[in-house]
Amino acid sequence: MEKDSEQQAGTTNPQERDMESNSLHQPLLKRNLTLSSSPLALVGAKVSYIESLDYEINENDLFKHDWRSRSQAQVLQYIFLKWLLAFLVGLLTGLIATLINLAVENIAGYKLLAVVQYIDDKRYMMGFFFMTGVNFLLTLVATVLCVFFAPTAAGPGIPEIKAYLNGVDTPNMYGATTMFVKIVGSIGAVAAGLDLGKEGPLVHIGACIASLLGQGGPDDYRIKWKWIRYFNNDRDRRDIITCGASSGVCAAFRAPVGGVLFALEEVATWWRSALLWRTFFSTAVVVVVLRAFMEYCKDGACGLFGQGGLIMFDVGSVPVRYHVADLIPVIVIGILGGVLGSLYNYLLHKVLRLYNLINEKGKLAKISLSLAVSLFTSACLYGLPFLASCTPCDPSLVNSECPSTGRMGNFKQFNCPKGHYNDLATLLLTTNDDAVRNIFSTNTPSEYRVFSLIIFFILYCILGLFTFGIAVPSGLFLPIILMGSAYGRLLGMAMGPYASIDQGLYAVLGAASLMAGSMRMTVSLCVIFLELTNNLLLLPITMLVLLISKSVGDCFNPSIYEIILELKGLPFLEAHPEPWMRNITVGELADVKPPVVTLSGIETVGRIVDVLRNTTHNGFPVVDHVGPVGEVHGLVLRAHLLLVLKKKWFLQERRTTEEWEVREKFTWVDVSERWGTIEDVAVTKEEMEMYVDLHPLTNTTPYTVVETMSVAKALVQFRQVGLRHMLVLPKYHGNGVAPVVGILTRQDLRAHNILSAFPHLEKSHASKKGR
Amino acid sequence: MEKDSEQQAGTTNPQERDMESNSLHQPLLKRNLTLSSSPLALVGAKVSYIESLDYEINENDLFKHDWRSRSQAQVLQYIFLKWLLAFLVGLLTGLIATLINLAVENIAGYKLLAVVQYIDDKRYMMGFFFMTGVNFLLTLVATVLCVFFAPTAAGPGIPEIKAYLNGVDTPNMYGATTMFVKIVGSIGAVAAGLDLGKEGPLVHIGACIASLLGQGGPDDYRIKWKWIRYFNNDRDRRDIITCGASSGVCAAFRAPVGGVLFALEEVATWWRSALLWRTFFSTAVVVVVLRAFMEYCKDGACGLFGQGGLIMFDVGSVPVRYHVADLIPVIVIGILGGVLGSLYNYLLHKVLRLYNLINEKGKLAKISLSLAVSLFTSACLYGLPFLASCTPCDPSLVNSECPSTGRMGNFKQFNCPKGHYNDLATLLLTTNDDAVRNIFSTNTPSEYRVFSLIIFFILYCILGLFTFGIAVPSGLFLPIILMGSAYGRLLGMAMGPYASIDQGLYAVLGAASLMAGSMRMTVSLCVIFLELTNNLLLLPITMLVLLISKSVGDCFNPSIYEIILELKGLPFLEAHPEPWMRNITVGELADVKPPVVTLSGIETVGRIVDVLRNTTHNGFPVVDHVGPVGEVHGLVLRAHLLLVLKKKWFLQERRTTEEWEVREKFTWVDVSERWGTIEDVAVTKEEMEMYVDLHPLTNTTPYTVVETMSVAKALVQFRQVGLRHMLVLPKYHGNGVAPVVGILTRQDLRAHNILSAFPHLEKSHASKKGR
Repeated sequence: MEKDSEQQAGTTNPQERDMESNSLHQPLLKRNLTLSSSPLALVGAKVSYIESLDYEINENDLFKHDWRSRSQAQVLQYIFLKWLLAFLVGLLTGLIATLINLAVENIAGYKLLAVVQYIDDKRYMMGFFFMTGVNFLLTLVATVLCVFFAPTAAGPGIPEIKAYLNGVDTPNMYGATTMFVKIVGSIGAVAAGLDLGKEGPLVHIGACIASLLGQGGPDDYRIKWKWIRYFNNDRDRRDIITCGASSGVCAAFRAPVGGVLFALEEVATWWRSALLWRTFFSTAVVVVVLRAFMEYCKDGACGLFGQGGLIMFDVGSVPVRYHVADLIPVIVIGILGGVLGSLYNYLLHKVLRLYNLINEKGKLAKISLSLAVSLFTSACLYGLPFLASCTPCDPSLVNSECPSTGRMGNFKQFNCPKGHYNDLATLLLTTNDDAVRNIFSTNTPSEYRVFSLIIFFILYCILGLFTFGIAVPSGLFLPIILMGSAYGRLLGMAMGPYASIDQGLYAVLGAASLMAGSMRMTVSLCVIFLELTNNLLLLPITMLVLLISKSVGDCFNPSIYEIILELKGLPFLEAHPEPWMRNITVGELADVKPPVVTLSGIETVGRIVDVLRNTTHNGFPVVDHVGPVGEVHGLVLRAHLLLVLKKKWFLQERRTTEEWEVREKFTWVDVSERWGTIEDVAVTKEEMEMYVDLHPLTNTTPYTVVETMSVAKALVQFRQVGLRHMLVLPKYHGNGVAPVVGILTRQDLRAHNILSAFPHLEKSHASKKGR
Repeated sequence: MEKDSEQQAGTTNPQERDMESNSLHQPLLKRNLTLSSSPLALVGAKVSYIESLDYEINENDLFKHDWRSRSQAQVLQYIFLKWLLAFLVGLLTGLIATLINLAVENIAGYKLLAVVQYIDDKRYMMGFFFMTGVNFLLTLVATVLCVFFAPTAAGPGIPEIKAYLNGVDTPNMYGATTMFVKIVGSIGAVAAGLDLGKEGPLVHIGACIASLLGQGGPDDYRIKWKWIRYFNNDRDRRDIITCGASSGVCAAFRAPVGGVLFALEEVATWWRSALLWRTFFSTAVVVVVLRAFMEYCKDGACGLFGQGGLIMFDVGSVPVRYHVADLIPVIVIGILGGVLGSLYNYLLHKVLRLYNLINEKGKLAKISLSLAVSLFTSACLYGLPFLASCTPCDPSLVNSECPSTGRMGNFKQFNCPKGHYNDLATLLLTTNDDAVRNIFSTNTPSEYRVFSLIIFFILYCILGLFTFGIAVPSGLFLPIILMGSAYGRLLGMAMGPYASIDQGLYAVLGAASLMAGSMRMTVSLCVIFLELTNNLLLLPITMLVLLISKSVGDCFNPSIYEIILELKGLPFLEAHPEPWMRNITVGELADVKPPVVTLSGIETVGRIVDVLRNTTHNGFPVVDHVGPVGEVHGLVLRAHLLLVLKKKWFLQERRTTEEWEVREKFTWVDVSERWGTIEDVAVTKEEMEMYVDLHPLTNTTPYTVVETMSVAKALVQFRQVGLRHMLVLPKYHGNGVAPVVGILTRQDLRAHNILSAFPHLEKSHASKKGR
């Protein structure tokens, strides 16, 4: 095996050999390959430097002292604050969700009322210009905000949150500006009738609220109270952001349990029972807030909000009866959902790559793209209903129900004569939420014509592919629900004479299947649909559909979120090591990296400055020299070295310090702050000659592996414990052997990076992929 | 700090000093204290040796070879089998759950019909003797089976499953006999009208089914097919048992999502997305099976089953309306639930300790105890309704509804004249399932008198405390639901004029609050109640009640399952280290253990036999001597050493072997089998002089920590990665320093054991407990 590997490395493909040709003459071919670990990723639509998060407890002297001196009261205060933050996250997310719904319902509502008025007056062209113009303006606001003020606010934000909870910090994701742009942009984009939802953005907004609360306010105006600083660490931030994401889902769907499960199944990487409980508390608060507002608004106190806002596609009143024979269409829906979902993922991937090329051309290109999509959408939504013919109303319906002339209603009159309705207008000339509600409507087997549903389906397939990537806050849930419900209902119509399930329920199942086929969630989707549709009897067949769709989809490609993560280049660590990772040891990995940069326990200022300037590493092993062999004292973080330089805690002579000396200079709070970059540090020439005692700032208990550990097992440890740095220790400690072989980070353990340095592993990779 | 510790150690209490007096003259006082790591626990009602499970992948040569030689087809087969097993677990759990319900409903139903007949004939004494006699016999069957054939079948089994999934293997828990006794015993005990449920036992039965399927059948009749042996490892067994436990909960409550969440929140220690999905599949199968049987049985094809079986306390038809004012009683219920729940935990703890004393007296004592409880229960159930006075029927009810004379019905006539009913008989003279259904009944505000409900509550408090510990399969869910619903409904009656929530819903909330107060679950309970009661609108207030009850309960004591785990002495590893664990390093822990026993890479047979006979360890570090310093090659398991001895793979001279030599002798399947104990091994004197090459059987990549690592962080690694052994490496490697400092196991990392060896930590323990 080993021999084989070297051969493979020798016969690497020509391009690669070319790239490395400058070092071809060195004796050890393997050493030529290096692990690429670029910390670059696409954040929003911009390439940025990303940082890893540090969930490890930094057990240095300062931490230990602070921890020992914490009183019982402080501990209680900390626990109380945790819960208070969870409460506030829920409260604010609920309030902002209400605000967004209120704004969208009113803006879109009055817009639609005006359009309906134009159509009633037969001023069709005016209606078209009015609608297109308003939508154009709304999109313009959303996209300009996104492009100029917060590029990270574009898109759903869920992949970045997923990455954050996996340990990857993308800059500018959770700031106050981002949140503001996300709120306003989301209102604009949704009110503009674009084929996108406010659900994804709400999840991001929830996370922003959580992050801002956790750090005590926006970056420039932070509350400096000491108690809030207890939360200034990556672990507590991770927990609170999980709460925020759950609250966001809950606010989007009014699904408290679904929100918790969504965070658990899809978003979070680490999870524990206590967090489950706190998250649940947050979502409970959200539900109470939403309910209170709906109670308040139901008498018309909030304009047009209250009649249609806060999606909840209630099909609870329908008795669900099904027999064994009904399993066949259910299975068909499941398979269809899986195939179409993975096809959607595939095509969306292509479109997003294309859009990335366009977006790279500059801000104007981005804005033009958004506006073009807006124009196309408006034209289709307004124009297509003219293709549909009018249907006479069912005589059993009351006059006020059919045809309806307002902005809502299931039987839109549009351009039809009295007593007739236009079924395509019912689906298109409305808000997305109402469109879902209309297509889910039950006990209306003859409402929609096949022709209209096909147009609706095709239109939303096109819009769903081309809207998602534009530079506005956009969620994926609603477009997928719209597409899925269309083919679900179509199938229901086809099965009509043979099946006993209502067509509206078919639409629900279709939506569920496409979600599972694209997003590949099961339990959380099941509960979200349960809470959305308010019908427990649907549960068993929903489960079946979801399971089939996910299984089928998994045969073709990964979930849409994983595709986006990949596309953005975020270094997401998978839970399971690839099988071929057993064939390589961490020692071999460390070998192909540049040699590790170590510091001495007592180091000169000059060398520290030098090291910080010339490397980008964030952690450095601290080595003491005891006798002939070096001994690893621990790991010191770049942030703490910067702190020392900024505070100029220098010693005249090479000596160790006493604990009180450190405590006098630094507090625990200093250590948890971020201290800028090395460029901000000014050190004089004399100071360069002075010494720093690194011992008190060193984390004396970093997690370690021995060099013979297989990468597979090291990855399990890295990911399960939630590390940022992992020290690789030598197996054999003799004289002259360095006490630390290397240091591994997230980037080094990513399958893609390892494969590019060890291409021979690819073969076993391909043959074992299925495992 | 360090000084303090030595002082403390010096002034240890006299007993301890006495125990260790033989070594008092040694210079290092600290060394006198040893970590107690007794692998004894109470399994069922018997003290047994327990073993830890090994979730680590044993990367030795054999594993690597086998893994490399697995073809794509085998990998697909493995995946297919995983899903097939999940399907079978669901199917069988569903079938057995139906069987149990069928048997219970028929036995209890015909019994009750006969009793009702006696009462109708006014032959009250005959009725009493009949009921008591039948219950006595049923209890006798259950308890005799439990005591003589499978002591581990007594109780709910959930704590043991929780421990199993945490990595503690309790013997005889998942065998065929245990399962059989559990099924029959559960039928007997529930049909005997004892205050216990079939829910806990169903969870255990689900786990048994999973375990048996996973290992290919009962111990003596295993299917020896190779494919099933792929599952013969602790990791795959853990996964399948998680599926089984979820299926059990699902079968008990017909709550598929609740089942998955129960396993996730309460039972499982390790969890991953793929498992979520597979578990969900199992529960979906269970639901389909249950539904099919109910469909089949609804026309009376299954005797009395079908009318009352399969608990599902449907309150879905009640419109739930509540306002801000209704929050007050909801909060009161929550607080009450928390207080009563923790009080129940406290008292049950005392009762179980008392019962342990009784049970130690022998099998006869156990049986007598069960029978005494049965007699007392029967007497109360039959006698107490005579205390209640008759209530005239509401004239709006049809004659057939009130009074009811059959075994079911909400208005039992019992001893009352025509047109009257006895409300206490409605609650007591019925199966537990029907009792819950009756007390949950909605739109019946004047059905129960306060007096009757108080008697009911007190009776079930007493029964709930004294029934749980007897030697029959018993679940905790139903007793708690009965108690909780009683005070809930009482509160509802008290609030009647002020609140707008139905009394039946108060009963539901009461039951939920007591569950949360005692079992301390949130999300899973919420979903289980949702699925049980079929009313989504109850969700927000249920959440509120659960959160309050859990918070209040947590102030007083741990959850009931944790109390039972503690009582049984199962070494459950908590997710979070205690704060004082930061003050001690793994090196200090290893110091107080007996010195680690290492083996050489090539070892004499004599020494191996010697080591296996004289130690109880399950893993031994293998050390090679390279030059002056030793080098750790890895860790070899006792099981593999036994394998070598049994197969007599001995070498004449001290040499290393080639890979083919090992592969010729052993297959991968051998390595995953259990090979008995050292007592079964016969080695001749000549063989004792021969050598064994341990290298190919050694796990070359054991997880390691450096001796300076704090116990807190080591525990995180141990628990997160799921280890059985953790090697402690020295920090300083010089000449003469042993290459391995010690080896830590689950027992060494338990807070209780560490505290008994380092009592000075207790002080900081007490003051920091709250964190």
